[in-house]
Amino acid sequence: MTCVVTLTTDFGSGSGYVAELKGRLLHAKSPFTLVDISHDVPPHDIRAAAWLVGQSCPAFPAGTLHIVVVDPGVGTDRGLVWARLGTPEAHQEFLCPDNGVLTLALERPLIAARRLDIPSDAAATFHGRDVLAAVAVRLLDGLKPETLGEPLDHLTRLHWPSHLETPTGIQGEVIHIDAFGNLVTNLPASFLPRLAATGRLRVGPHEITTVVRTYGEAAPGTAVALVGSQGFIEAAVVEGRADERLSARIGTPVAIHAPA
Amino acid sequence: MTCVVTLTTDFGSGSGYVAELKGRLLHAKSPFTLVDISHDVPPHDIRAAAWLVGQSCPAFPAGTLHIVVVDPGVGTDRGLVWARLGTPEAHQEFLCPDNGVLTLALERPLIAARRLDIPSDAAATFHGRDVLAAVAVRLLDGLKPETLGEPLDHLTRLHWPSHLETPTGIQGEVIHIDAFGNLVTNLPASFLPRLAATGRLRVGPHEITTVVRTYGEAAPGTAVALVGSQGFIEAAVVEGRADERLSARIGTPVAIHAPA
Amino acid sequence: MTCVVTLTTDFGSGSGYVAELKGRLLHAKSPFTLVDISHDVPPHDIRAAAWLVGQSCPAFPAGTLHIVVVDPGVGTDRGLVWARLGTPEAHQEFLCPDNGVLTLALERPLIAARRLDIPSDAAATFHGRDVLAAVAVRLLDGLKPETLGEPLDHLTRLHWPSHLETPTGIQGEVIHIDAFGNLVTNLPASFLPRLAATGRLRVGPHEITTVVRTYGEAAPGTAVALVGSQGFIEAAVVEGRADERLSARIGTPVAIHAPA
Repeated sequence: MTCVVTLTTDFGSGSGYVAELKGRLLHAKSPFTLVDISHDVPPHDIRAAAWLVGQSCPAFPAGTLHIVVVDPGVGTDRGLVWARLGTPEAHQEFLCPDNGVLTLALERPLIAARRLDIPSDAAATFHGRDVLAAVAVRLLDGLKPETLGEPLDHLTRLHWPSHLETPTGIQGEVIHIDAFGNLVTNLPASFLPRLAATGRLRVGPHEITTVVRTYGEAAPGTAVALVGSQGFIEAAVVEGRADERLSARIGTPVAIHAPA
Repeated sequence: MTCVVTLTTDFGSGSGYVAELKGRLLHAKSPFTLVDISHDVPPHDIRAAAWLVGQSCPAFPAGTLHIVVVDPGVGTDRGLVWARLGTPEAHQEFLCPDNGVLTLALERPLIAARRLDIPSDAAATFHGRDVLAAVAVRLLDGLKPETLGEPLDHLTRLHWPSHLETPTGIQGEVIHIDAFGNLVTNLPASFLPRLAATGRLRVGPHEITTVVRTYGEAAPGTAVALVGSQGFIEAAVVEGRADERLSARIGTPVAIHAPA
Repeated sequence: MTCVVTLTTDFGSGSGYVAELKGRLLHAKSPFTLVDISHDVPPHDIRAAAWLVGQSCPAFPAGTLHIVVVDPGVGTDRGLVWARLGTPEAHQEFLCPDNGVLTLALERPLIAARRLDIPSDAAATFHGRDVLAAVAVRLLDGLKPETLGEPLDHLTRLHWPSHLETPTGIQGEVIHIDAFGNLVTNLPASFLPRLAATGRLRVGPHEITTVVRTYGEAAPGTAVALVGSQGFIEAAVVEGRADERLSARIGTPVAIHAPA
């Protein structure tokens, strides 16, 4: 089975930095399939990268190697790591800075991790190319990860906002906005019965009063609440943009109120 | 020969939804080459997708599987289909919603089509991942399309504007604007002799009076009319943007007037 | 070893023209790995393409074939070329218009070049598809480049701004702005000792007085000067955009003044 290697960076689509990464990776003697996840993570936005990696990487075949380069601390003493997460039969591997980009991915068990050594001739501003891609080539060509550097027992995690249950309802916030303008919240899909019972989702100062199973169940332009494909409750505007209509951003509070 | 699989969506470049699609597809045991056509189709724009698919897909090798997910009706009772178009020796295969995205591709003969069954556990908002990618994996691994679901004799087509010949000339409209701002019309290349005879193309209220064989035949900044690479008459501004200069959009009327 | 083919164009990401190029290339019988370098070169910007190609292509394995289609003169009498650059053991191959896109790549020796014949049925506005991709397929399938067309001894080069040493210091300019807004200058990394001695880099009317080894060595928001990963002195704003803060663009003058 051919290995899969994915790339997630904030270098910008079409950046020569991405091309350099790919060029270096393709020096591996073993064949592999290279997949771009995104090069348009907002610059330096570790939190956005953590969401994207947490959402996307579990869909890939076991053994996929994910290279994540969103690294505002490049060249400082923040570590670079190799990590294996999941279960032995369904694990994913990562090469990335130890700066929190794996926060959501770490909801799966950490099987093993190593701190990478930084060669003295690595450019201080481009460890993605001179450390991560170089290590990836060696791993693709058979290097055992156990030889990589000192073992690590835990990795850096960002504080991640969790939802809150109170006597008057459930409170959360917008944690992701997709390209359609849909608002993904941190209210898990398991709250659907309570959403359905109250029939309303509050998003900032706005009240959504149409709960649907999918977007097309309401007329274009309607603000709706539903369970999205990521396992969380979402707010959307049918064939429109909920972020604009509801003036919402990452962090905007959302709530399901207790039925009266 | 390795199969080719293409992806066309409105998910946005760098979207985690695209990554999920790719991750699922890569579970196929058979090797294949994965090609992104576009993830930047304007959201919910079936017409734009139909143009892109009609333009691009015939260039691929026979047997290529094109997955198209521009699907504002996801989860409603609109169908999902597998279709084979073309000739037995030069056919293309498609997995997509039956909502008109194949309108231009259907200028080639429909060899066979099947309506896909929707598994009960598919997320109502992401059939691309839970139905189309899953079926693609099974097709790549050898499933016969004939086993997929009930056969269909015809597929949904959008109304597509055609040109009109009148005593005073030929009327059409802008059907596509490319990234250079060039205006592709629905006037076929076969009208070139008439364009050359009149020496002018009307675009909205503007009159273009320079007819060329290629952009570089006129000075930068000149508005020109020519036969473009897609087999239609185009309006362009040399090293500039015709859409801005001529205030044109999809649907702007164009005309070749009869020679006086 | 599987051949690698890269694509660099100004067609726009998601353009159907890119898809047509890829579809044609995939008719090669020999397997190859297809890599997008960029489709977002600013339209008609040969200089930007020359930078990107010069920066990116040397990272790829020997024998990689780079197809570059930034070609405002398509269909005119500008030539189309095949070229091999580098050393026999570490060469890169190119298919592109002979319009200067190889200016920086040509800092490596030109081993061989051929002027391509243009088939009479090639669309005058899309030689990338009808000439370059067609030749690429034949090369991938074993055609000897020596049979391609008349040999060329030299290729077109753009005038490229070089730095200047004067009694009062070293003068250069901004030659590239990356997606982070970092300003890459044409002052080679070898001037670092002089930069460190003066402790300041002038960018337009602004004076940067913090010289660092990497971005994270100064507080967010600080304007810094450093040696970047491309081997040139850069100006950056830590976790910000130097282009906006310093109102800089391609061509903005930069200088290291002689120590007082």
